[in-house]
Amino acid sequence: MEFVQSPGKDSVLETYLKCVPCLFSQASRACRQLGLDDDTGWQIIQQFSREFADLDMTLPPPVQGSRLYDLISRVTGRVDPYADIKVQSTVTAHELLKECRHRLVNSSDPVGAALRASAAGNIIDFGADLALGDLAGAFHEALDSDLAGGGEAAFRQSLSQLRRNGVLLMIGDNAGETVFDAFLLERIADERPDLELVYACREKPAINDAVISDCLAAGIADVAGLISSGSCIPGTWLPFCTPRFQELFRTADLVISKGQGNFETLCGEDRKIFFLLKVKCPVVSEEIGLPLRVSAFVERSGRGMAC
Amino acid sequence: MEFVQSPGKDSVLETYLKCVPCLFSQASRACRQLGLDDDTGWQIIQQFSREFADLDMTLPPPVQGSRLYDLISRVTGRVDPYADIKVQSTVTAHELLKECRHRLVNSSDPVGAALRASAAGNIIDFGADLALGDLAGAFHEALDSDLAGGGEAAFRQSLSQLRRNGVLLMIGDNAGETVFDAFLLERIADERPDLELVYACREKPAINDAVISDCLAAGIADVAGLISSGSCIPGTWLPFCTPRFQELFRTADLVISKGQGNFETLCGEDRKIFFLLKVKCPVVSEEIGLPLRVSAFVERSGRGMAC
Repeated sequence: MEFVQSPGKDSVLETYLKCVPCLFSQASRACRQLGLDDDTGWQIIQQFSREFADLDMTLPPPVQGSRLYDLISRVTGRVDPYADIKVQSTVTAHELLKECRHRLVNSSDPVGAALRASAAGNIIDFGADLALGDLAGAFHEALDSDLAGGGEAAFRQSLSQLRRNGVLLMIGDNAGETVFDAFLLERIADERPDLELVYACREKPAINDAVISDCLAAGIADVAGLISSGSCIPGTWLPFCTPRFQELFRTADLVISKGQGNFETLCGEDRKIFFLLKVKCPVVSEEIGLPLRVSAFVERSGRGMAC
Repeated sequence: MEFVQSPGKDSVLETYLKCVPCLFSQASRACRQLGLDDDTGWQIIQQFSREFADLDMTLPPPVQGSRLYDLISRVTGRVDPYADIKVQSTVTAHELLKECRHRLVNSSDPVGAALRASAAGNIIDFGADLALGDLAGAFHEALDSDLAGGGEAAFRQSLSQLRRNGVLLMIGDNAGETVFDAFLLERIADERPDLELVYACREKPAINDAVISDCLAAGIADVAGLISSGSCIPGTWLPFCTPRFQELFRTADLVISKGQGNFETLCGEDRKIFFLLKVKCPVVSEEIGLPLRVSAFVERSGRGMAC
């Protein structure tokens, strides 16, 4: 089996000086979200500070973030600190989909509507400063917004041209969002029932990112094969992924990547990828060339080049 | 000489978990403001992370901040990294005052107008996320806003009731802002020419806070006695101040404290203080009970009590 080459410093988003406040914001926010007492919070913050001083800043931000979330697990003794939040997110997402399912399925363009729903679902991100309480309003608003970045037409063309029995790989992000990803995969399967759909998720908990059990709760197994990428960080950093996933990533006929963490770790890869995400941070906004808060759908092949 | 007792943990603003992102934002912003290259920036950030892990979080945020700015001086070899920025700020403030001096002096209430100008000047704060380029617009806007917090009437009463030859101590904050503080002291002297006015500043550079030379450039020596508080942090933490300043602080008949850093370090002190500042951070907003971004003028005596 041939391995995907490790991305070098110039081919990915590294951690910039301006990423530092965000990483420490995540630390402070995580303590609040998880209801930790101040003493535990300070223990985590101070240990993270100590470890932060020795991290390799040529690696992308999700790699640094994973150190924080590992630390939270070690200090709190919770293997999956966001387990309850992930269940709540999945329940809320199922409710939201139930509300708008009829409208989406019966739209003139169900795949387009499902792409917007899937991007809107990327609002569910406990690494960014978003509360689940805001979700319904933000979701409905995002559902009515066009996807920025011009990737939709290219995606529709790629989908229609896919070879019979071709493999479409979708790389998931947050638990809950997975419910809308399942819905998108269903609509794609309606249009191209011959394709092999595969959905990849994290190997171990990383913030509220989906692992296999979260994907099952979202109903993805009904429509796509499930695979762990091997990633234990809130992104998909290929050198940390299993050889099986690397091979799948390299050979899949079409790849959809969800969310910022996957964008940060995959945007320099030398293959065509469709990135579907909410733009949530200034660094990604600059890299992707789109304003903050938009639902984006962009095609990239290698650093900055759409093919 | 009797020393002011050191404030204990419960009598001042300590460093909260939610202050952490702000301190690291300051670190990242300072590197940008000072035009440092990435390697120097990372050296500062990583060393600050290492030191941050061992700081005493029962002390107020400006004490932690001072570690960052000390570090910037050590790494860059610049004794006063913000020297140029302070000169620019002072020049800009003189220009702004020249523009609006006539209007302020001839208002129906020159002391009130000067209080608003002095509060508006607190916009000049390179520790917070404010650029000098925005200053003129923000200044004129703030000049037209009433002071929140209800301190103005009490201050006017205290001023009118001050004993003959009484001592009014003003504790300064940022360089540039000092120009408007000088203007306020002039208006106070017009009303009460019998008072002894004293203006205190930092002993050594701390961000862009004013030291003696910055006060001279602002023209304060024409209207008030100048004294260093002994503080080398972006605030006035009494245990770090000179005995002479502590005595002055304890015995002054009226004290005006400018800015957030002074509020954070003095708000629990057991004497009446008038705090004049722009509210710039959520922690201070909560403590002072006023919204973000307002110009505030509040009277406090001991923790949370106006007398």
